[in-house]
Amino acid sequence: MTRIDNRAFDQLRKMTFTTDFVKFPEGSVLVECGNTKVLCCASIEYRVPPHVPQGTGWVTAEYSMLPRANRDRSKRDVAKLKLSPRSAEIQRLIGRSLRAAVDMEKLGEHTITVDCDVLQGDGGTRTASVTGGFIALALACRHLVEVGELGSNPIRHFVSGISAGIVGEELMLDLCYEEDSAAQVDLNCIMNELGEIIELQGTGEERAYTLQEQQDLVQLCAKGNRELIAMQKEVLSR
Amino acid sequence: MTRIDNRAFDQLRKMTFTTDFVKFPEGSVLVECGNTKVLCCASIEYRVPPHVPQGTGWVTAEYSMLPRANRDRSKRDVAKLKLSPRSAEIQRLIGRSLRAAVDMEKLGEHTITVDCDVLQGDGGTRTASVTGGFIALALACRHLVEVGELGSNPIRHFVSGISAGIVGEELMLDLCYEEDSAAQVDLNCIMNELGEIIELQGTGEERAYTLQEQQDLVQLCAKGNRELIAMQKEVLSR
Amino acid sequence: MTRIDNRAFDQLRKMTFTTDFVKFPEGSVLVECGNTKVLCCASIEYRVPPHVPQGTGWVTAEYSMLPRANRDRSKRDVAKLKLSPRSAEIQRLIGRSLRAAVDMEKLGEHTITVDCDVLQGDGGTRTASVTGGFIALALACRHLVEVGELGSNPIRHFVSGISAGIVGEELMLDLCYEEDSAAQVDLNCIMNELGEIIELQGTGEERAYTLQEQQDLVQLCAKGNRELIAMQKEVLSR
Amino acid sequence: MTRIDNRAFDQLRKMTFTTDFVKFPEGSVLVECGNTKVLCCASIEYRVPPHVPQGTGWVTAEYSMLPRANRDRSKRDVAKLKLSPRSAEIQRLIGRSLRAAVDMEKLGEHTITVDCDVLQGDGGTRTASVTGGFIALALACRHLVEVGELGSNPIRHFVSGISAGIVGEELMLDLCYEEDSAAQVDLNCIMNELGEIIELQGTGEERAYTLQEQQDLVQLCAKGNRELIAMQKEVLSR
Amino acid sequence: MTRIDNRAFDQLRKMTFTTDFVKFPEGSVLVECGNTKVLCCASIEYRVPPHVPQGTGWVTAEYSMLPRANRDRSKRDVAKLKLSPRSAEIQRLIGRSLRAAVDMEKLGEHTITVDCDVLQGDGGTRTASVTGGFIALALACRHLVEVGELGSNPIRHFVSGISAGIVGEELMLDLCYEEDSAAQVDLNCIMNELGEIIELQGTGEERAYTLQEQQDLVQLCAKGNRELIAMQKEVLSR
Amino acid sequence: MTRIDNRAFDQLRKMTFTTDFVKFPEGSVLVECGNTKVLCCASIEYRVPPHVPQGTGWVTAEYSMLPRANRDRSKRDVAKLKLSPRSAEIQRLIGRSLRAAVDMEKLGEHTITVDCDVLQGDGGTRTASVTGGFIALALACRHLVEVGELGSNPIRHFVSGISAGIVGEELMLDLCYEEDSAAQVDLNCIMNELGEIIELQGTGEERAYTLQEQQDLVQLCAKGNRELIAMQKEVLSR
Repeated sequence: MTRIDNRAFDQLRKMTFTTDFVKFPEGSVLVECGNTKVLCCASIEYRVPPHVPQGTGWVTAEYSMLPRANRDRSKRDVAKLKLSPRSAEIQRLIGRSLRAAVDMEKLGEHTITVDCDVLQGDGGTRTASVTGGFIALALACRHLVEVGELGSNPIRHFVSGISAGIVGEELMLDLCYEEDSAAQVDLNCIMNELGEIIELQGTGEERAYTLQEQQDLVQLCAKGNRELIAMQKEVLSR
Repeated sequence: MTRIDNRAFDQLRKMTFTTDFVKFPEGSVLVECGNTKVLCCASIEYRVPPHVPQGTGWVTAEYSMLPRANRDRSKRDVAKLKLSPRSAEIQRLIGRSLRAAVDMEKLGEHTITVDCDVLQGDGGTRTASVTGGFIALALACRHLVEVGELGSNPIRHFVSGISAGIVGEELMLDLCYEEDSAAQVDLNCIMNELGEIIELQGTGEERAYTLQEQQDLVQLCAKGNRELIAMQKEVLSR
Repeated sequence: MTRIDNRAFDQLRKMTFTTDFVKFPEGSVLVECGNTKVLCCASIEYRVPPHVPQGTGWVTAEYSMLPRANRDRSKRDVAKLKLSPRSAEIQRLIGRSLRAAVDMEKLGEHTITVDCDVLQGDGGTRTASVTGGFIALALACRHLVEVGELGSNPIRHFVSGISAGIVGEELMLDLCYEEDSAAQVDLNCIMNELGEIIELQGTGEERAYTLQEQQDLVQLCAKGNRELIAMQKEVLSR
Repeated sequence: MTRIDNRAFDQLRKMTFTTDFVKFPEGSVLVECGNTKVLCCASIEYRVPPHVPQGTGWVTAEYSMLPRANRDRSKRDVAKLKLSPRSAEIQRLIGRSLRAAVDMEKLGEHTITVDCDVLQGDGGTRTASVTGGFIALALACRHLVEVGELGSNPIRHFVSGISAGIVGEELMLDLCYEEDSAAQVDLNCIMNELGEIIELQGTGEERAYTLQEQQDLVQLCAKGNRELIAMQKEVLSR
Repeated sequence: MTRIDNRAFDQLRKMTFTTDFVKFPEGSVLVECGNTKVLCCASIEYRVPPHVPQGTGWVTAEYSMLPRANRDRSKRDVAKLKLSPRSAEIQRLIGRSLRAAVDMEKLGEHTITVDCDVLQGDGGTRTASVTGGFIALALACRHLVEVGELGSNPIRHFVSGISAGIVGEELMLDLCYEEDSAAQVDLNCIMNELGEIIELQGTGEERAYTLQEQQDLVQLCAKGNRELIAMQKEVLSR
Repeated sequence: MTRIDNRAFDQLRKMTFTTDFVKFPEGSVLVECGNTKVLCCASIEYRVPPHVPQGTGWVTAEYSMLPRANRDRSKRDVAKLKLSPRSAEIQRLIGRSLRAAVDMEKLGEHTITVDCDVLQGDGGTRTASVTGGFIALALACRHLVEVGELGSNPIRHFVSGISAGIVGEELMLDLCYEEDSAAQVDLNCIMNELGEIIELQGTGEERAYTLQEQQDLVQLCAKGNRELIAMQKEVLSR
């Protein structure tokens, strides 16, 4: 089966990482994954929320879509006076994923908030947010070292995310919107640079799936995440 | 390693299903999984939300905890004027899981809302909500057949959910609260009676985990879900 | 006139008090009054709100109905982003009634919050909440003594509540839902063990009522409350 | 015991009713009861809410305090994003009381909303709202007749409200703020022109009260309401 | 062109200032401008918000309309759970205007909140709120001097506001509701006693307007504000 | 006085207009004004709000800042459950300004919503939103003509906005953030291509200003708007 954009089944979309797209955050990147565009901004606060053990830090994330990021305009959350439940689910995933990247004791009493605002959505916004959010986070951590606030960098390992799915009964990596809309099965996988899993969310949209299919999808994601982490390393070494 | 309640590593907690605990819903069950108690109530409406294709039905779920379901009292959502993000995440999982159990064309233009209210939380409330929510849903579907509203039962297959995790570097099925709090890895798996996966959510709480560990945890959940579906069948055949 | 459930005009419905239905609150009881089921849970905090005089305590209550506690499903308060005005009215009544039971100086700087969550509503939920809420409150006070936090029990006197009404121009005690729906006059009366009134709320639903009728209804409630307080004493002496 | 303003124990405060204080509502009055000032405005809509039986009307009320109606400034409800629970309780009382005054079949498919906005609060705002709200309501009903929308006036009987209480162990009618703050017992009574009770709310603020005291307080309110209804008749006959 | 109420094109409506209409605020006035009635109340707090520099004070304003201040009843803000955007815009204007009147260092660490509640709206409510709000503010400042809290009065200069507009292609001062509804251009101008501009808001409702028209409208407002400040001085010298 | 970025007193910052920065809206542009970056997206709906006369159209605007658009991170509106009052004020200004550009009868029963989301704020975001919002609006109108929905373009005239102010007692055009923060007087002026005023908002931040100063600031804005409209024409003729 030929993919809509002629990619191989295990091929990522074109990825672009524009750091310094905005200048105020301590770390920021505009990540583009095909037509998906997410602006990821990391902001540092010099205090932590009450539930955090003394002497340690905290990393959290917020996720939102601009009203016209998609084919149809959606109302703003504030107009409905509630956070979109989908956004709530996604920002919890991003937050857990990014916290896994950081040594909270090394981070000390700092909170880093990573805002992931989707300017254009074309599938894969949650995993693009993790992949781009990690870069923003890493830049903010580097900033803390550069200004002398931290003695060493608290990043423990790189973290990226990608989706895979079953579309027309074929396995595919990095679904775009049309593929995602037609997928029988959709799986998002966040991994570290050792190829270990941090977060895994698989959903049988149109049908349930076997344990073997599940394993094959994770393997596909592992390939994608290896490539993404290589790109992250290149971006951060510029 | 001995478990806190002396269970074998692959042993479920004691499960109890009290149908008719409340009498107004078209289907309801009080599910107890160890000390976790969730009241699942299915309510039928004779109309569907606008996004549903004509002639088909809809299944949705809501999840909430009573303020003192846990060790500490938490404020009610309405006092904070927002749905807890954790509840938002969980009720989306329950909704997707239960929708997978139903043939929406057979259901016709009916909405079934499954309310899962946690009276006491001791770990595993989201999977208990799926397992109990399925029973409430099945009873409501049976009601629709019995009153002549539907010609045949729209349930496609049984659905249940269970957690597994890595605690003290050992794999365990059906974590209770103390185990869950100490887990390195936590995985929730919703399956159907064919042993296929409907929803999978794995989280590396304390560390990332390997693809092999992931597969082993899913296998453990498969065993638990087989047992749970057997119990569901027994309950529904009473 | 024969009552729907064959009770005498001055007869209470069958009352059941299940303490320890849930295990985390410092005091809790599942109170059943006929088909009405309310879970009352008392939670202790070791601080008081700002408006409370130094050295004294505070007792407050919250009341809510599960979405399918009634014949029809109602939306959750959080979905409407507002506390139901009826719930607001009722929880203020419960709070005032329970505060009347406690010597706030003896309670010291502790707040006891009594959550009354209606699992099934069949008339009389507000008075059942007071009657059951008192038991939860008394158990929580006893807990404070048992753990050595208080030297003596701050309960001043027992408190219970019951309704009476005029249905089909006959006076009746403890209206069930069908009776309540048809009542001309509905009166709720909270009393202490001396037979004195703490709160009285009378409403001419279908017609105004005379001072004599009002007095007769209060007398009927006095009989009911005497019986309820005897039951509370029995429950708390177990 | 001498009262703070030298009134007899059974004497009302000076009452003033300024109709036409504002000109847009179909009925309005500024009611002053001592230093308490409430602006009551009745607005007509030519439709009814969905729960109202076809062909019949509806009467509802809203109650609010201006931020600086009292000794201390309070935040606006909208700033807290919730209706004050006290206001919720009071506006339900006003609504029930005013509905009792109207023949809903004669009113036909009209909704009358009575807004009671407290400009200055000095005790007795809820009963002043009922007493003034009735006048606004009656003027709006008269308007419906005058414009030919109704053939006859739907008012069934006059309705007024007043408080009585026990202060320093003495019974007193129409408590002002200082008396109310010091009251042992506080009772609000809404009555019709036949001296029958429509709503009764009695609260033992500092102590419980006997059935005899309760009866005496109601008698005191009956005297006050007789005088208030005479004043309402005079105002409406101008 | 004759104006609807026969005023000259540069003539203010009849203005009335009733101080002490309510007695609790530290400063208050009921301002009437034709049929527009606004109750302005200034409340003092002995602390300032966090953004205010140490040792200096703060002045803020809130603006709201009673539900039936206008020809049609509008829902309360709290019923919609949001501050009306129009009110938000207006109260920011009032706040900026009144802050310009005060020397914040002389005010010291006090916050003065000026509540402007429109009892009846007939055009010009925002400028009437500034003109009346200034009087309430000045009275509250005088109170701070009288009670010895301040050594000297922190008012720097008088502030008032008025509208002008182009109606039927003629310039007019102080538009009433009918004129405002028909205006091509509407301009609000807040000035001090030196005839200098503090706030200027001009809107081409029906058409854009020239720089010359703009200047002519400001001149007209300057005349109105001179007269208003003379009235304010008279009121404050009583 | 030399400006912070060496501009002449009457010189605009470098303006960039990137159309098609996002691809889903019917019209969109990323406008950059110095370091200020605003994404303006126009969305068409084929219906109008109820208050709009039959057969005519409607144009409205929403304005928001991303959390880290500024030097400090601000909380999202939805986290505070209220639209920022500043945003409310600004989006009303943008809406009025853009409505002035359109012949609503020619637009027919279509609503165009222009979302202005500030990605980076460095002064002048509201006027940049008007200037960019006009381009997005014009592109959306052109789209309606191109798809045959409208017979002719409903744009009546071009609209742009710019600020001027008094900084260090000198008049300056197009204030950047540092200049705006230090300004004595700040004026925003929206104009059409005939040099007429649509909206004018002037604020004496640090001091009041004379009518002559006001006129000089408007003249400065007129120069800026002439240049901006020339740029808009160039962008739309590409």
